[in-house]
Amino acid sequence: MNDDARWMAAALALAGRTRGRTTPNPNVGCVIVRDGRVVGRGWTQAGGRPHAEAMALGEAGGAARGATAYVTLEPCAHVSTRGPACADLLVVAGVARVVAAIGDPDPRTDGGGFARLRAAGIAVESGVLADAARRSMAGFLTRRALGRPHVTLKLALSLDGAAAMADGRSQWITGAAARAHTHLERSRHDAILVGRGTWEADRPQLDVRLPGLEDRSPPRVVLSAKARHCERSEAIQGPTPHALDRVAPLAMTAPIWITAPHDIAALPADHLFVEGGARTAAAFLRADLADRLLLYRAPILIGGGRTLADFGLTDLADAHGRWALADQRQLGSDRLEVYERA
Amino acid sequence: MNDDARWMAAALALAGRTRGRTTPNPNVGCVIVRDGRVVGRGWTQAGGRPHAEAMALGEAGGAARGATAYVTLEPCAHVSTRGPACADLLVVAGVARVVAAIGDPDPRTDGGGFARLRAAGIAVESGVLADAARRSMAGFLTRRALGRPHVTLKLALSLDGAAAMADGRSQWITGAAARAHTHLERSRHDAILVGRGTWEADRPQLDVRLPGLEDRSPPRVVLSAKARHCERSEAIQGPTPHALDRVAPLAMTAPIWITAPHDIAALPADHLFVEGGARTAAAFLRADLADRLLLYRAPILIGGGRTLADFGLTDLADAHGRWALADQRQLGSDRLEVYERA
Repeated sequence: MNDDARWMAAALALAGRTRGRTTPNPNVGCVIVRDGRVVGRGWTQAGGRPHAEAMALGEAGGAARGATAYVTLEPCAHVSTRGPACADLLVVAGVARVVAAIGDPDPRTDGGGFARLRAAGIAVESGVLADAARRSMAGFLTRRALGRPHVTLKLALSLDGAAAMADGRSQWITGAAARAHTHLERSRHDAILVGRGTWEADRPQLDVRLPGLEDRSPPRVVLSAKARHCERSEAIQGPTPHALDRVAPLAMTAPIWITAPHDIAALPADHLFVEGGARTAAAFLRADLADRLLLYRAPILIGGGRTLADFGLTDLADAHGRWALADQRQLGSDRLEVYERA
Repeated sequence: MNDDARWMAAALALAGRTRGRTTPNPNVGCVIVRDGRVVGRGWTQAGGRPHAEAMALGEAGGAARGATAYVTLEPCAHVSTRGPACADLLVVAGVARVVAAIGDPDPRTDGGGFARLRAAGIAVESGVLADAARRSMAGFLTRRALGRPHVTLKLALSLDGAAAMADGRSQWITGAAARAHTHLERSRHDAILVGRGTWEADRPQLDVRLPGLEDRSPPRVVLSAKARHCERSEAIQGPTPHALDRVAPLAMTAPIWITAPHDIAALPADHLFVEGGARTAAAFLRADLADRLLLYRAPILIGGGRTLADFGLTDLADAHGRWALADQRQLGSDRLEVYERA
């Protein structure tokens, strides 16, 4: 990994801090480097502002002059009521070089940020750790490209694929470390969805029970195919900033009800965490609305348990080549494997 | 790993060469080391004789005098019509030291081999790589301790635990590398068992289709709970040497039929490979007759497929702590995990 890639990796680490809390803005990271030292660090703040570049430039002050700015996304070119364009801020600060991971598909920027920097005589490079950046900002990019949230399916399974015993008991398949990791993943999403069966059987809290992250619990969504549940639904509004206010104690907040997986497009969330159960996971796979699989696997056999339901596969050959292993690790005696769309 | 352990590891590698082909004898390995060099190597030959020590001493000749013999099992103390006692051979050859992994539970030896060596002034140590040796000779040791073969359950599964689609199609879940590994495992077992459903639906060959190992295909056993199938069964005899003659083209040989998992005790096999399907695997788990799990997992989702059947688990807590991960590796895009009884 060369120097540019190492600094970009640092910027990506910062970008991860507010993943799931910047919707509809992307979660961007930025480090400003001068003479081999970091002089400023920034990341999109919860709610979407300030932007990463503004925060990093603020920290760098005069040290930004002649420095290199590493940003995980092309600096924005549009002025909003909430702040100036980041490309303009970089020009004014006098940075000598900007290295970006990927361009910004937002039509208000989409190359315009790079153009403005170049017009001011700043050296611009793009494409450094692009894959990692696409993964980091998957929610923003999926919303831009497909008009819906990026969907992670979580499955906690036995070796034989059971998410629960035949009668529904599932406490516990995985151990404490795996469950804590699930809570961390919750904190990185805008919304958590379960099926009506899971909701009514378990009334799961679905909150983040990790020290210091209790206020990161995302709003809850329940999928119910039965129309009679619509009367309970809250109105679904289009993506608007701050639509999901996390100040209220969320365990007390009524969930949002939807009737079909495609309804997620209307949720004000760019990162959706689908937690169960096995039928709900199948419904998302059937609708081709699963982008990432989070598989926690415990070293146990259950036998005759509840496994992933039929999602319409008709030919075994079609099952292959769809999922690529992106990450894996041991969590106590359980194993986590992360798969992404191939 | 010290020198003794390194030489013992070499002896264990030799011991693996005839695993599954020495029943009712153990598959033993032996290396004879003098001045830091191997002067003789031996392993129990297919059919059970010559023993590892006899072969290694034959290769070493006069170089065995003053050398150290590393053996994976206590040298036998009993003379048989098929050869002299290995303890006596080691004494006559003039080895200075014998290092063994474990003692031989056979009542005809059971410490008698070590005693005879010590009585002749040979230094004796035991317990080097004992766990690995117990794993290597699991068939022999399980037969001695429990009066039945050591049982490996093989499962080739999708990420969601399906061994087949709902209609039974399973070609293919895993890829070529995983299937080749299964053929290698077949060659290391005395017998391969499938359930009647798998047998009648697929008429599987269950042979070893690996270059150079075609003659290692073990006899086939079919489990059928229905008594009417007994009329087709061949007579089952107790363990006798050479009962399973592998010279005949096995694909042409009629299988042995049994009616319950516990019938495996009467098979002339110490290493049994249970290949499927999901109901048969459950029958062995229900009877507590599974010692080792060989899990091949393909990076695919099937949904609503055939998964491991109910084997009588009533409390999720009882599922934990039963299986310990013993080995894992990548086989192409599939993952192999080997679990053993904890």
